[in-house]
Amino acid sequence: MHQHKVRVYYEDTDAGGIVYYANYLKFMERARTEWLRELGYEQDTLMEQSVAFVVKRVEMHNYAPARFNQLLSIETHVVELKGASMTFQQIIKNEQDIKLVSGDIQVVCVDLATMKAKRLPRTLLGEISRVI
Amino acid sequence: MHQHKVRVYYEDTDAGGIVYYANYLKFMERARTEWLRELGYEQDTLMEQSVAFVVKRVEMHNYAPARFNQLLSIETHVVELKGASMTFQQIIKNEQDIKLVSGDIQVVCVDLATMKAKRLPRTLLGEISRVI
Amino acid sequence: MHQHKVRVYYEDTDAGGIVYYANYLKFMERARTEWLRELGYEQDTLMEQSVAFVVKRVEMHNYAPARFNQLLSIETHVVELKGASMTFQQIIKNEQDIKLVSGDIQVVCVDLATMKAKRLPRTLLGEISRVI
Amino acid sequence: MHQHKVRVYYEDTDAGGIVYYANYLKFMERARTEWLRELGYEQDTLMEQSVAFVVKRVEMHNYAPARFNQLLSIETHVVELKGASMTFQQIIKNEQDIKLVSGDIQVVCVDLATMKAKRLPRTLLGEISRVI
Repeated sequence: MHQHKVRVYYEDTDAGGIVYYANYLKFMERARTEWLRELGYEQDTLMEQSVAFVVKRVEMHNYAPARFNQLLSIETHVVELKGASMTFQQIIKNEQDIKLVSGDIQVVCVDLATMKAKRLPRTLLGEISRVI
Repeated sequence: MHQHKVRVYYEDTDAGGIVYYANYLKFMERARTEWLRELGYEQDTLMEQSVAFVVKRVEMHNYAPARFNQLLSIETHVVELKGASMTFQQIIKNEQDIKLVSGDIQVVCVDLATMKAKRLPRTLLGEISRVI
Repeated sequence: MHQHKVRVYYEDTDAGGIVYYANYLKFMERARTEWLRELGYEQDTLMEQSVAFVVKRVEMHNYAPARFNQLLSIETHVVELKGASMTFQQIIKNEQDIKLVSGDIQVVCVDLATMKAKRLPRTLLGEISRVI
Repeated sequence: MHQHKVRVYYEDTDAGGIVYYANYLKFMERARTEWLRELGYEQDTLMEQSVAFVVKRVEMHNYAPARFNQLLSIETHVVELKGASMTFQQIIKNEQDIKLVSGDIQVVCVDLATMKAKRLPRTLLGEISRVI
């Protein structure tokens, strides 16, 4: 299971004193990017090959708020892999290992020129199927 | 049904040339704020009474991307109302009336001091039950 | 002088209870976009002609904080126009007409393909010189 | 001189394919937070003592754009220290050590309850004067 740390800065919080709800999706996207990087794939290189990822579906549950200056930990793993899409389960925890937020995120591989779905690059598909 | 217009500015887009997925949740929150304002409730006034709203659950489906400079329209209505929470269904459409994104957002009323759930203010509960 | 209204939503604030300082630059960019639209120029159309604008220099003074739910007003005017760049002076005021933030923003016209500076389109240059 | 690394994610970029200009101010604020942390000061603890920092003045120069997926490095040092304010000079470089952005940021210490300027805490003032 992949883990990525995120610090909560002022920019992430709102006047309620907690992390603004949309920003958890930013944290999860950072974690997916780092997960992909550890598999050996840089998204700027993929974009040069006209390969990009678009989020198709989000299901997020917020159990407890994250607060300014906390160091969060995001666990990421793939729970479903199809030819042109994959679904991640991601869990955000605080330093006391309490689950704050969970997300199921379905991501579709698209051709950057047309934005139409296409199969994941063969080698990447192979890499991912090895780790799930 | 309540409708709110949102212009897509540079700040909302990403290097893929489309609206960054987390930003649809910003647009939906703006629309919920305007929906509440039209009911006669200003959230800064509610906060002075220690009443705030926290998102508990998000289910978002992305059908097609919104792009830079588009004028989006967000339809908002309440589909479930309980004592301490309500669930909104929100749909984002482009100028051709094509559905781009839909979201089911469950919002919980909390006491700002303790962040614990509490019943919606009685008069607000009455107002909302009249419009759904 | 061009004026654009911006509502402060939760997304714009931070845990200090005020608008996060970087977000004033978002508000100013929205106002410049609307200023350009009123001159008859849509930036998505300009981008199709490989014309884009890049900020070169920002000088921002923060006199007093804007707060959640305020309706801000942004005044925009061009104070310098050169062949490939223009400098805006922008002032953000609250509903009591108190100046909260001022910004001098120098924007350079670039070729989107190379990101190199190039002259503003001739007709646009003409339009702007008429209004300053 | 303090150095902090920041990865450019999708959330930081815009449809022009580069980092959105306001987001450099987020990166600089993260770096100032980490600089303060290394001096031994956590901002959530300071906030509990009603001490917060508000940006008073920004002067930012953008020499070249940062792009998606780059690993940026932010150099931070204090160039002026007064009783109630300090001015930072911050430089953002890419992996080839090219200067992309520079910023002079004046930050004022405020009482969180009143938002009025007040002297920096004595021990913090001592720490900072030792490192500049």
